[in-house]
Amino acid sequence: MRQVYLDHMAAMPVRQEALDAMLPYFREHFGNPLSLHDYGEAPREALEKARAQVARLIGAQEREVYFTSSGSEANNLALKGVMFQNAKQGKHVVVSQIEHHSILNSALTLQKLGYDATFVPVDQHGLVDPEQVAAAVRDDTILVSVIHASNEVGTIQPIAEIARQVKSKKKGVLVHTDAIQTAGTIPVNVDELGVDLLSLAGNAFYGPKGAAALYIRRGTRIMPLIDGGIQEGGRRGGTEDVPAIVGLGIAAELAQQEMPQRMAHLSALRDQLIAGLTAIDRVYLTGHPTARLPGLVSVVVEYVEGEAMLLLLNMNGIAASSGSTCTSRALKASHVLTALGLDAALAQGSLVFSLGMDNSHEDVAYVLQVFPPIVERLRAMSPLYKKS
Amino acid sequence: MRQVYLDHMAAMPVRQEALDAMLPYFREHFGNPLSLHDYGEAPREALEKARAQVARLIGAQEREVYFTSSGSEANNLALKGVMFQNAKQGKHVVVSQIEHHSILNSALTLQKLGYDATFVPVDQHGLVDPEQVAAAVRDDTILVSVIHASNEVGTIQPIAEIARQVKSKKKGVLVHTDAIQTAGTIPVNVDELGVDLLSLAGNAFYGPKGAAALYIRRGTRIMPLIDGGIQEGGRRGGTEDVPAIVGLGIAAELAQQEMPQRMAHLSALRDQLIAGLTAIDRVYLTGHPTARLPGLVSVVVEYVEGEAMLLLLNMNGIAASSGSTCTSRALKASHVLTALGLDAALAQGSLVFSLGMDNSHEDVAYVLQVFPPIVERLRAMSPLYKKS
Repeated sequence: MRQVYLDHMAAMPVRQEALDAMLPYFREHFGNPLSLHDYGEAPREALEKARAQVARLIGAQEREVYFTSSGSEANNLALKGVMFQNAKQGKHVVVSQIEHHSILNSALTLQKLGYDATFVPVDQHGLVDPEQVAAAVRDDTILVSVIHASNEVGTIQPIAEIARQVKSKKKGVLVHTDAIQTAGTIPVNVDELGVDLLSLAGNAFYGPKGAAALYIRRGTRIMPLIDGGIQEGGRRGGTEDVPAIVGLGIAAELAQQEMPQRMAHLSALRDQLIAGLTAIDRVYLTGHPTARLPGLVSVVVEYVEGEAMLLLLNMNGIAASSGSTCTSRALKASHVLTALGLDAALAQGSLVFSLGMDNSHEDVAYVLQVFPPIVERLRAMSPLYKKS
Repeated sequence: MRQVYLDHMAAMPVRQEALDAMLPYFREHFGNPLSLHDYGEAPREALEKARAQVARLIGAQEREVYFTSSGSEANNLALKGVMFQNAKQGKHVVVSQIEHHSILNSALTLQKLGYDATFVPVDQHGLVDPEQVAAAVRDDTILVSVIHASNEVGTIQPIAEIARQVKSKKKGVLVHTDAIQTAGTIPVNVDELGVDLLSLAGNAFYGPKGAAALYIRRGTRIMPLIDGGIQEGGRRGGTEDVPAIVGLGIAAELAQQEMPQRMAHLSALRDQLIAGLTAIDRVYLTGHPTARLPGLVSVVVEYVEGEAMLLLLNMNGIAASSGSTCTSRALKASHVLTALGLDAALAQGSLVFSLGMDNSHEDVAYVLQVFPPIVERLRAMSPLYKKS
């Protein structure tokens, strides 16, 4: 049976070049980058090389890149680190309603700890309105955080315009963007976006799990989330995961080099898949029709449950997702689809295909051949569908 | 020139068996453990296998083991997670004065955020007195955290007695121990220690960097440090670093199997090195003479600076440390040695040799041949030494 992996948003294989670069750091150059003796030298140089590679990917300075263990850690560091550090100046944070759970739940945690959070709504395409974000900014607002592109519906947000309007409403408000789905995938530049903090993760562009980064603009006041030694300029304690960071660096370099080809390839597959899927009766694209990630196809299928579709697709060798990966086992209606105004029943029929470099037009053709009978079969079992 | 690595506390090479086990999870079994399709299966099973391996190492139940990215993260999660979650019940935490920076600085951060911390002193051997810890417990005390064995002077604390006395002083007080230097090195059992939380890290027993764990006794109230999805029972968000966790599991299993042999080998080398070093004029052992880690030799050398010794040792192919790794580049007097009552000048002469399985009696003999002339040479340049 043909195997078609269309869940790159959940996980990607590490690029061979990245893995090859990592290997010497497990046993040969195993030293601690902080060590004063010779064993510290190669790991220390490797860290700084990776920092430069990541900095180049997003147009940052090297010293503005802080390594973390995951995109979620970077997001938590941004929200909690900034709010904790600046608590005397204010306790209000603004986020959108379609943030990743690492942002959303950080905001909820801050609320529990005596902070205040505003959740700005989105339109039916998942777009955040910069004016609404600016309107949510108050005298005590310290930070605004909006996801660069939704991991569930792929909509790309006007971050630059949001940052501009927020900062013209109140000077000094910090702007963070969760760019985990965009950095390494589409062009991302911290100065063009006008952000003070930006999260990225290597496993979103063929780097290993276990290495991610938070960009922190020079001069930004932030408290560590993980206190410890003097690693990462004192902003993130704990021995650096040198092999994973080396892999992240190589993956960042490759992503930058190959980005135009990757984007062209993914967009072509995406458009082919969207056209085929939405040709099926009562299958609707979610997210923005044009301002969307090159590799993300998200739909809702009326009268069918996402989980049932996933199981039948899996039986046909096709791996996909429903809602976000983090909630796929939580069996809750996606907060993102709810924010888009979809009713709970329709949101249950969510399906997300995330494409990768190794996917082909034949893969997409196979999905489009296998999927319609699956929908038909499941709908045949749905009492709601029969009545309609 | 002979190369003698005696800085295993700072970093260790990953065991070949652990690395071999990790490799398939980078590119072959690369999936996300949360995925509902087939690609999630192997990573999910690997995670749970590693969880069982780690649980066995410390006598815990599998569901009480929560993976983190580093020992520092585990320590931060323990302190901040417990204090944040239980803030309504009390805001007081008790730690010792010789904690690792990830505990010490977490306590200082909690102070900044409106919590209260007590730092219990130690005796000249670095021993914490259980009675003094219990005496520090107040009505509003939520958590006591004492390091199981110091990473700087190797003293092993009477954690079981501390837990017993603390809990008899106030029922319900939680006890955490930072067992990063002991788990995988000497026998550690959460029930025998009587702790509610315990931190361990794979890179302290030949596992990879990037994987560690916090033991959380069932029923313990704790807030995530890293909010996110439903990974790790909702207590630690972020995609799991499956390869590193697999390596941690194998390393835990090997550590458990080989522990008696490793301890015997390390203790013999340790005693040989201590005997040789303390035979040098005005070189003093720091930490406890008997209740100490099998592989840790810590001394202070009067009239000599630690950094100068490290450089000359390094020129002779010997890698060692001064104070803790996290402070070795911070050039501050070690808070641990200061807590032991050493004056700042003497503390500057700190030297830490941490032994590993691959070290031999010949390695130790080489150090004992090379080191005395280094001390002599440096003292010859010291105006203080000449005067004395």
